[in-house]
Amino acid sequence: MNVECNLEKVSAYAESLRGEYESNLKKLVSLASVSMEPDRKSEMLQTADLAVQMLIEKGASAKIVNTAGQPVVVGEFHAGSEFPTVTVYNHLDVQPADAAEWQTPPFDMQIEDGVYRGRGTTDDKGPALAVMYAAAYVHKLGVPINIKFIWELEEEIGSPSFAQFLADNISELATNSIVVSDTIWVSRERPAIPYGLRGLQGFLFKLKTGLKDVHSGTTGGLARNPIAELCDLIAQCFDAKSGEVKIPGFYDDVRPVNEEELSNFVASGFDVDNFKKAHELLHTRTEDAREASARIWARPTFEVHGITGGYAGPGVKTIIPHQAEAKISMRLVPDQNPAKIINQVEAFVRSINADVELVREGTLKPFIGEFSGPFNLAAKAAMKAGFGKEAAFTREGGSIGAVVSMQEIMQVPIVFLGLSLPEHGYHAINENFDWQQASGGMRMFVDYFERLSKIK
Amino acid sequence: MNVECNLEKVSAYAESLRGEYESNLKKLVSLASVSMEPDRKSEMLQTADLAVQMLIEKGASAKIVNTAGQPVVVGEFHAGSEFPTVTVYNHLDVQPADAAEWQTPPFDMQIEDGVYRGRGTTDDKGPALAVMYAAAYVHKLGVPINIKFIWELEEEIGSPSFAQFLADNISELATNSIVVSDTIWVSRERPAIPYGLRGLQGFLFKLKTGLKDVHSGTTGGLARNPIAELCDLIAQCFDAKSGEVKIPGFYDDVRPVNEEELSNFVASGFDVDNFKKAHELLHTRTEDAREASARIWARPTFEVHGITGGYAGPGVKTIIPHQAEAKISMRLVPDQNPAKIINQVEAFVRSINADVELVREGTLKPFIGEFSGPFNLAAKAAMKAGFGKEAAFTREGGSIGAVVSMQEIMQVPIVFLGLSLPEHGYHAINENFDWQQASGGMRMFVDYFERLSKIK
Repeated sequence: MNVECNLEKVSAYAESLRGEYESNLKKLVSLASVSMEPDRKSEMLQTADLAVQMLIEKGASAKIVNTAGQPVVVGEFHAGSEFPTVTVYNHLDVQPADAAEWQTPPFDMQIEDGVYRGRGTTDDKGPALAVMYAAAYVHKLGVPINIKFIWELEEEIGSPSFAQFLADNISELATNSIVVSDTIWVSRERPAIPYGLRGLQGFLFKLKTGLKDVHSGTTGGLARNPIAELCDLIAQCFDAKSGEVKIPGFYDDVRPVNEEELSNFVASGFDVDNFKKAHELLHTRTEDAREASARIWARPTFEVHGITGGYAGPGVKTIIPHQAEAKISMRLVPDQNPAKIINQVEAFVRSINADVELVREGTLKPFIGEFSGPFNLAAKAAMKAGFGKEAAFTREGGSIGAVVSMQEIMQVPIVFLGLSLPEHGYHAINENFDWQQASGGMRMFVDYFERLSKIK
Repeated sequence: MNVECNLEKVSAYAESLRGEYESNLKKLVSLASVSMEPDRKSEMLQTADLAVQMLIEKGASAKIVNTAGQPVVVGEFHAGSEFPTVTVYNHLDVQPADAAEWQTPPFDMQIEDGVYRGRGTTDDKGPALAVMYAAAYVHKLGVPINIKFIWELEEEIGSPSFAQFLADNISELATNSIVVSDTIWVSRERPAIPYGLRGLQGFLFKLKTGLKDVHSGTTGGLARNPIAELCDLIAQCFDAKSGEVKIPGFYDDVRPVNEEELSNFVASGFDVDNFKKAHELLHTRTEDAREASARIWARPTFEVHGITGGYAGPGVKTIIPHQAEAKISMRLVPDQNPAKIINQVEAFVRSINADVELVREGTLKPFIGEFSGPFNLAAKAAMKAGFGKEAAFTREGGSIGAVVSMQEIMQVPIVFLGLSLPEHGYHAINENFDWQQASGGMRMFVDYFERLSKIK
């Protein structure tokens, strides 16, 4: 079989299933599987049940695996143990949604001209269903590949139970490669395949210089000012204007970005003006697209998220605070190691201000996947088959904890074949997905699975 | 008459009036004249009425003068227009009090072993009454001096109507000197006469880099961080550890403190350990008493009171804020000029970060009074007469706007003869005053008025 020659058939298959796809997506969206909200236990379980049912209806085996947190749905279209296996990762939990801000109710999916508006449509229920239909088609055709599914329900809260789930089920989950379908193109005009994620190391910098706030008239000049000392420390940690981190050794393990990567970044359609508009930024640290894309995707950062402890009301109140806390995090890139970064930061802060207490917050390792190799070549070809355009290889600036866990525990190649677009309102109000991306995604995944069946 | 020879008589007079003093102070304290609280209008007017009535009962003329804000009580013991005039400044408004935190109800004065506990006892109703009884005694004896009173009711909110009141009534208020009785000794062991106050210039430093908070994964490295840029600006404005201000020209007009002044500061009983205990500071910028007292009384400061705009909840949330505001003020000392300081700060901030918007907040000029001269000599001698100990000449680190207004508009010497002690809980819970300071204060003021009657 050569699927490339049969793309018209796949398109026809997709069109024939459009009603079913839309109906099933609407059912999934109607369950408010908001993992951040503790009172959604029932919706989470109903979502898992519905997902199992949908997989079974299409001819897969499927079940719920319980964890210490939310369950994970696993499933498989089994072709034969002598054939290669690919595992698809999606998640079925969603971000919260404030109905008052939406054009239409977030959990009652509306269809308008092929656009599906509702929470979870693009992140990540719509892509999950598109992959499922592609897999069902491939399986029905008898393509010699086993297609496994991992549908998580805790992605939006940082996957707290996921590493343990993988470790506990490692033999059952055995696979030759993983495809993650939960990323965003840079522009609708150009498919994008990210191959790297940034990591994260958070800290609280805390300084206490007294037991109560004091009056700057009575004590000013003699009393220490903990906010000002944290400002000084932060200014020594990094240059706020350029963003350059000044902590010794911080950049030692940063993998340089080569010319080919930079060209790919810009080829994705990345544009500084569009980026500014999308994020409502008045200024950026550079206007150069090449430099800008490297900054957000391939370079580490130092960020101050807030400083608390002082007067926060209107105007000026002349207190000297007795304590202050700066909320800090660093985005890390390959091959930075969070453990080493923690040591560097702690030593540096101690050297600048020994009274500052450091509290370590969350750690996420950076991720770098296949930039070349058979899986990436297959992904690129599949993108072309699905959407008629060459894909650009990019990275993502955020962190997906589940991906790093899969890399560490399952130790197989991971590729990203996402279907979301900037205009889909990922994590925002009026989130949406569309049939153009869903049907193109089906074509792409059919092609991808067919190609993978030939990689031994 | 030589009052110095009659101090025993004054003491006997004071003792004979102790019951009346305590009863009147209790009446004044029972009226919660909290100028910060808008719903105290009735208590403010009752306080003014009661004050007028008390002055009239002791033989003075007295009346209420209305202003755009709270009224001012003015009064006079008139001896004759051919004699010199002294004006006493006190205030009858008080700080707020949270009854739940107090040992006894703040507006129901308790008397225990000669200690008067209640809001306003030491700041400033108790001292005001002590001066009134001293003036009544001097007047009855026929000492040739006119003693005028200005009792303000807006001191605790920065005297917003006071300058206009002075300007509107300048001829009626004509005087040869002013004595302000609203300051605190450094230690009960040693009377203190401050002769200087620091001024103040407040600012908001505001920076806006976007229209909404963004995600540090998606935008970090390219988006500017307004909190971090303000930290950098603050670190360039002053050295948080030493307190040294780095804005060019900032120290140009600072009047140097000479050896005699420094010796006086320390002679007041100033002690760094006691200061740390009183203000519950864990550390101070110096442990040296001479250096420490100069820092709080005679040197300018740069202070950060708070930084808002970022994430303020628990832990770390990886946003990049779109705006930030630092709440800044500088304490100023003689002969710094706030208008010049404003220009220096604005030019410096512009040179470091042109996107930062500066908003000017409150301005209070620094004050320097008589360090020598006949009024200060009289004050020193009167302190010795009243309390049996040599007074130390100190300064105060805070700002009293009313004093600067009196200096500018009335243009006569101003001296400070305060009666409050550190243990009196000025602006704190369980505020108190005591008969030892009240009766010593009466002796001191009798002696002071008698001396002033001889200064032509």
